[in-house]
Amino acid sequence: MEKKKNNSSSSSSNSSTMTTILHNAVIVTMDSESRVFRNGAVFIEHDRIRAVGQSADILQQFLLLAHQIVDLQGQILLPGFVNTHVHSSQQLARGIADDVDLMTWLHDRIWPYESNMTEEDSYISTLLCGIELIHSGVTCFAEAGGQHVTGMARAVELLGLRACLVESIMDSGEGLPVSWAVRTTDDCIQSQKELYEKHHNTADGRIRVWFGIRQIMNSTERLLLETRDTARELNTGINMHVAEIPYENELVMNTREVDHGTVTYLEKIGFLRNNLLSAHAVWINDSEIGFLSRAGVKVSHCPAAAMRMLGFAPIKEMLNLGICVSLGTDGAPSNNRMSIVDEMYLASLINKGCEVFANGTTDPTALPAETVLRMASINGAKTVLWDDEIGSLEAGKKADMVVVDPFSWSMIPVHDCIANLVNCMRTENVVSVMCNGQWIMKDKKILNRAILSAAKQVSRELLERAGIKLPNRMNVL
Amino acid sequence: MEKKKNNSSSSSSNSSTMTTILHNAVIVTMDSESRVFRNGAVFIEHDRIRAVGQSADILQQFLLLAHQIVDLQGQILLPGFVNTHVHSSQQLARGIADDVDLMTWLHDRIWPYESNMTEEDSYISTLLCGIELIHSGVTCFAEAGGQHVTGMARAVELLGLRACLVESIMDSGEGLPVSWAVRTTDDCIQSQKELYEKHHNTADGRIRVWFGIRQIMNSTERLLLETRDTARELNTGINMHVAEIPYENELVMNTREVDHGTVTYLEKIGFLRNNLLSAHAVWINDSEIGFLSRAGVKVSHCPAAAMRMLGFAPIKEMLNLGICVSLGTDGAPSNNRMSIVDEMYLASLINKGCEVFANGTTDPTALPAETVLRMASINGAKTVLWDDEIGSLEAGKKADMVVVDPFSWSMIPVHDCIANLVNCMRTENVVSVMCNGQWIMKDKKILNRAILSAAKQVSRELLERAGIKLPNRMNVL
Repeated sequence: MEKKKNNSSSSSSNSSTMTTILHNAVIVTMDSESRVFRNGAVFIEHDRIRAVGQSADILQQFLLLAHQIVDLQGQILLPGFVNTHVHSSQQLARGIADDVDLMTWLHDRIWPYESNMTEEDSYISTLLCGIELIHSGVTCFAEAGGQHVTGMARAVELLGLRACLVESIMDSGEGLPVSWAVRTTDDCIQSQKELYEKHHNTADGRIRVWFGIRQIMNSTERLLLETRDTARELNTGINMHVAEIPYENELVMNTREVDHGTVTYLEKIGFLRNNLLSAHAVWINDSEIGFLSRAGVKVSHCPAAAMRMLGFAPIKEMLNLGICVSLGTDGAPSNNRMSIVDEMYLASLINKGCEVFANGTTDPTALPAETVLRMASINGAKTVLWDDEIGSLEAGKKADMVVVDPFSWSMIPVHDCIANLVNCMRTENVVSVMCNGQWIMKDKKILNRAILSAAKQVSRELLERAGIKLPNRMNVL
Repeated sequence: MEKKKNNSSSSSSNSSTMTTILHNAVIVTMDSESRVFRNGAVFIEHDRIRAVGQSADILQQFLLLAHQIVDLQGQILLPGFVNTHVHSSQQLARGIADDVDLMTWLHDRIWPYESNMTEEDSYISTLLCGIELIHSGVTCFAEAGGQHVTGMARAVELLGLRACLVESIMDSGEGLPVSWAVRTTDDCIQSQKELYEKHHNTADGRIRVWFGIRQIMNSTERLLLETRDTARELNTGINMHVAEIPYENELVMNTREVDHGTVTYLEKIGFLRNNLLSAHAVWINDSEIGFLSRAGVKVSHCPAAAMRMLGFAPIKEMLNLGICVSLGTDGAPSNNRMSIVDEMYLASLINKGCEVFANGTTDPTALPAETVLRMASINGAKTVLWDDEIGSLEAGKKADMVVVDPFSWSMIPVHDCIANLVNCMRTENVVSVMCNGQWIMKDKKILNRAILSAAKQVSRELLERAGIKLPNRMNVL
């Protein structure tokens, strides 16, 4: 399957002049022409794609230049998926808040967990989360906010992933853990500037640092406006949870003098810009969809978390108005699978189903597979403001890609390749993942089980420290 | 991990006196006391569980009697899951009807497909479907209706699964393919009696034959009443699609003189009995929930198909009224994953989410994990009228069980074992499956790739024969 040529340099794949041909693949490029090559190839030089085309053409043109030639034997090659909303620091909290109401979720489980984390916990958590992301074909993620960006960055660097990291930022609000409640607006901005200085554009350019707003209920107007202006100065993005629950909108109406909710308020203060990644955007009305569309705000749709905790966002309506909607998993205690592969399946299902409530029946034609695949790839890249380099397989873009095996029991028969990728594919079918020209998973092998042991140990200790105790669900003997 | 003892007979695992201890497992029994053994064991004799308990006790009591002793090394042991609604003959049609409206789905894709099937197609389709079912930990399924029960039975026998098979039965209705339209009520009953004679209680008792009603719109009243009476005489069950879409209820109201829909009509004619497996039951009102409850009718909830095609059934309300609700995948062109593991995850998510429409917010406490796990196991067994022998791990029941590896990246950390089984577990975590005392999957190995090749070939030929052509979704080069 893989040949090293005699004339290849003896250096490893880290060599800056490394060149590779991947051929004999179904290539789903996700480019602007929606090109799919039945028997295609890519030529990769160091960290970038230099050419994409028919296998015969690429082999003829680049054979003599390639150090490595890999026959993909008819497997499917796709751009790496982009997960636009994931709390990588919450991975160790998977299962601590299942089947409980929202207040218990936040006050008794998540806040004690997050406020008791150390940088080392965050490092292990992001490592563990990253392993799961890679298994689902993700090569880039937008962190949704945690306490220790330095811990996350160490993990991302080691994993070989690409990420937009962000600190969890709150400068006000009721009932916060003491260590968070003391932070001033200035602390919040200063801390993020320092993180930007330290980590932005590190790890061969794979790490970017964004600005964060946890949510409106924990943000003063000054924090919002200074965040907007500082992010603009530094030419980076802002990540914020928006319109998650009806209560949020009510509180905003009652305290911030607007007639609907968070989005209306953010419009009013001039916060909506095209570098804003708005997570969830569930409880928004038609005017607010218009505000988001006109400002070029990006939306991360997290189907599992929406069903479990938040409600049904008007995804079809947003797409119809040209809003860039992408897919996220949210964090482990909200979902609990960190699989963008599963989120594609869910996005297709739930957005067909929720039409019942508007129209009396489901609409099985809503969000067809090609739209969902776009949300997970090129729309993801646009959402993280990185579509000049990732999100599709095109000459000049970074070599971020996924090899999918469609020949196993879970995907055959393949009558409709694009539909099967969305509706049948599971993490089992994701066999290899390349990011920035490096294989970060090859034939399903990735790092080692030592991380798993460390994760179990660290998460147990963290729950003890945080005083979180879970009831037994059955009669444990 | 596995020891064969010196005093074991030289015979294979087919020996009728074969005895095995599986120990050092977390055993989730799903018995009426919800017992979970942290370090448990089972003693299996031939096809039955003889004892379940603490590992130390079982080893002490049965060590000398066991031919084989398997250390499960802390993995989780569960009863085999029961998939109570699957069209095994539709497996070869996966992907032929994605993102199309219901009429295209039925008239242009599914009917041409099904009416062009041969017995051999059905055999291959059920084999392929069975492989996927086993990978998701299913040991027993209720077939939802296909054309060639003999083909299905051959596959089930080979796979080692347990199944309640049923023919797809229609004696009336508009627009049917010619070969189906000619069948009389008498043909329908007679054919099923013959299938019952031929296949019921075959394959070491693993196969049972039920009576089928495809749906109300293709059934005369005489067919319904004779089916009810014949099934009662033969002491077997009836499988029927019920209240799937609003149009069905409207048609019933307009043609059968009742004031609501299918369930109201079935109540009126005395069709509702405790041997009825009602699939979907989406469009039912409070009175109809009452009818189903009082009659002891069982309901198969298929979350993926519901979201994609049908709508949201009042599952919480049915469970609250004591109705036995279990889980099904439906067929491959309606879902498209045949994974009861994924259906557990979906059942948890969607039944929390759909509370939005009744109450304005989701209810994250709805359908807790222990309830969902019950739906997939003991409720499944009750639904297929087999709970005297399967559905929980108890002395005297058949040895149908699943080994789950919770130590991989997709399930750790395990703070809440029951919740993780429902919300995190994927088919990757299902490592071994036993049915009727025989391992039908061991360390993820099951049959061979020859079935997969045959499936691809046969399904391509079948689509050609049926004249089904799918449009390209992208620009294929």
